[in-house]
This record gives sequence, C-alpha cells and structure tokens, in this order.
Amino acid sequence: MPTIAILGGTGAEGFGLALRWARAGESVVIGSRDAGRAQEAAAKIQAALGGKAKISGEENVAACSAADILVLTIPFEGHCALLKQVRTAIRPGSIVIDATVPLAASVGGRATRTLGIWEGSAAQQAAELVPRGVSVVAAFHNTSAEVLNSDAVVDCDVIVCSDDPAALKTVSTLAAKIPGVRAIDGGKLENARILEQITALLIGLNIRLKGHSGIRITGLPEKAYEVS
Amino acid sequence: MPTIAILGGTGAEGFGLALRWARAGESVVIGSRDAGRAQEAAAKIQAALGGKAKISGEENVAACSAADILVLTIPFEGHCALLKQVRTAIRPGSIVIDATVPLAASVGGRATRTLGIWEGSAAQQAAELVPRGVSVVAAFHNTSAEVLNSDAVVDCDVIVCSDDPAALKTVSTLAAKIPGVRAIDGGKLENARILEQITALLIGLNIRLKGHSGIRITGLPEKAYEVS
Repeated sequence: MPTIAILGGTGAEGFGLALRWARAGESVVIGSRDAGRAQEAAAKIQAALGGKAKISGEENVAACSAADILVLTIPFEGHCALLKQVRTAIRPGSIVIDATVPLAASVGGRATRTLGIWEGSAAQQAAELVPRGVSVVAAFHNTSAEVLNSDAVVDCDVIVCSDDPAALKTVSTLAAKIPGVRAIDGGKLENARILEQITALLIGLNIRLKGHSGIRITGLPEKAYEVS
Repeated sequence: MPTIAILGGTGAEGFGLALRWARAGESVVIGSRDAGRAQEAAAKIQAALGGKAKISGEENVAACSAADILVLTIPFEGHCALLKQVRTAIRPGSIVIDATVPLAASVGGRATRTLGIWEGSAAQQAAELVPRGVSVVAAFHNTSAEVLNSDAVVDCDVIVCSDDPAALKTVSTLAAKIPGVRAIDGGKLENARILEQITALLIGLNIRLKGHSGIRITGLPEKAYEVS
C-alpha cells in the first residue's frame, strides 16, 4: 500500500485531500515546514475519524522520505523553493502530484488571474525540478477546498494530466476514492496549464456568484469516466 | 426583436447556433464570404424547420449591416482580417459575440493547443478591432458543434464574459434559449482566454476519449444559473 505525503497539508486544499484519503483508508503523511503543525493537523484528522486513520505528520523533507506519492498543495510562491529543498529526499520511482496554481496573488496580484510560467505551467516547472525517474502528474486543481473539508459528496471531476500513463492511472484511482469525483484522462502534462487556469476562473465565479464551484465534463462515453 | 448575424455561419459551430436560435424563433442571418453558400445554409435550416424560421443568408458585410447582434464563429486565421473587413458595417450599439478559439491549428499546429494572443485572448483582440460603442462578449466556445447540429439537449454551460454588463445579460438570455444550456456570468472579457483554452482541452478529450465533450459548472447557488 503506497504512502501519500501531502506537502502543504496544513493548508485548506491539502488538509481536505488528507481527510478524504484517510477516510478512504489510505496511508497519509501530512507535511509542513513545521513538524509540530503537521502533527497537529494529523491529530485533528485522527480525531475526526475516531482513531482509525493511518495518518501522521512530519516536516516536509521527512514526509518525502517516507512516501511513494507526493502531493503539492502549496501556494505558488513556495513551489520552486520547496521542490529544490525536498528534491534529494524524493524516492526514485515515486509520483509527484502537482495541484499548484500559479495565481497572480502569489506576487500581490489577483487570485482570479494567473502568472505566465516559462515552462508552460506550474506542473511542468515541477517536472524540471524533480529527480530523473520521478513522474509528475497534474491533478486536483479544481476541487473546492471547502467541499473537500466537509462531508459532502464532491461534485467535481478531476482531470489528470501526465506524460507517464502508469502514473496517470495510479492518480486517477486515487482521485476516484473521493466520493463523487470522477477521474478523467486529460492527456499530456502540458495540458496542466489549462487546469491551472480553470482554477482562476472558478475562484472568480466563487467571488462573484458566492459558491464553491467545480467542473464536470459532459459528453464522453461511460468508460471515459471509469478507472480501469 | 434583434437580428442575429452569424459570421462563419456555414461552418459547423455557426450553423449549429443558427439552427438552435432559428428553432427558438429568433431572427437569424447566416453570413459567409460567399452569399450563395450563406443562402444555401439558410435554406437548409428553413427546410429543417418546416418553413417557419426567420432566417436568411448574406455575404458577411451585408449580414453585419442587417444585424444587432453579430456572432463570430470563424477559424482564428480569419479573425483579424474579417473584423477589419466588416468593421464599418457594424452598427453602433450592437453586440459582437466572439466564440473564436485561437487554436494552434490556425498556423499548422495542433487543435489541442492554443496560440498566445498579445491582447490576452481572441475576444480581447476583437475588442480592439470593433468600432467604439460596440460591446464584445465572449461565449459559446465550449458548446460542441456536433451536439448543436443534432436534436439533443445541449449538456453544456455557456460561460459568458464581457466588460459590458448589459451586453453580458443579453447574450446570457440568448444562450439560455438553447435547450439544456445554462448561462453563467464569467466576469470580465479578460477571462475569455480561459474559455478559449478550455476548448483546446475539450478537443483533446474528444480525440482521446471519443466523445463530444462539454462542461458544467457545479457548486454555485441556484440563482447563478438563472437568467434574470
């Protein structure tokens, strides 16, 4: 059974994913700059799940060393620096799931706009920074943190992009463990730029229309929505 | 009652919109470089609707002169040139709906990638080219041409972006006349870049997963989906 480390797991999006996967019986490590805060967050989830969760908290580098699957749910301003910091602790053959959105808010701008990234997307920036043999998968940009942190069924599809088809499949299986989520094959990692921008659009909708928006993809054959 | 001219109305997307609006009782002019082809397309819709449609076909400039609402459903390679050509025929106070997607296919690249537009999006390029007093609204990028050209309920939301709130509302009302479509206020015209890129993503899904995909926005309060 793979261990999932969520870097930035004390933030709303990361905490919500940790909660959902711990609830599904996955083995989860919450990572944070501060080991104490990570352990607090883990204890909160443990309490919410009545002591039955396989969850712990660690400082980010230690969290990486312990994990087969890493999830980045961090503000874009820390994206590059964190990857450089944990780089040598990432195990060969592991998967990095990048949910980072390069919001202009990272540089004091609006959360409804994105920055242009030289590589094309935050996920492609990550792909340049991880060690050889580590696969980057872009996913979970569009799932509302508020909804993840509730008991509600998540009314949102997770579009999954990667240049590694096996990693794409592993992450799709993980996505589908969240009640309501359908995982959809979004193709190559280069498409991550579109997922990242959709988040800026959804943030705008949330502000303007007062909701916790998500997206569903319609019009595909049934088996496109099934994880095989 | 406003007249809607669809420039590029002999193409699949434009023809589908013309069909749907004619079916809803709207007054529609199909525009084309070739008046003959425009008239043929109009006759086809007239026949499909049993002679009850308010529809005609005109060369593009003539179509503009006759219309209150213009819809651009043209390949991006003709976008700038067409707007320059018809510019003087666009009536003051009219609305230009831009559904153009700057696919890389326009310059021989892939239909799953977009070009970077200096102004930010094709719709913002249009906004620079229309006469003063004409409002540009971005919409209908994500509705499948195949579905529009069928009798099926359209399982897709239309996100509508404009800097002119009144024009945004007019276009939202028009979108909601297509069975199944919900119009959603997408905010300022600058957000059109995201709608345009979503189309490239959907084209990729259609190719990879064999469908006619669309999107739905979830998680907003009921009234966000209603046209007031």
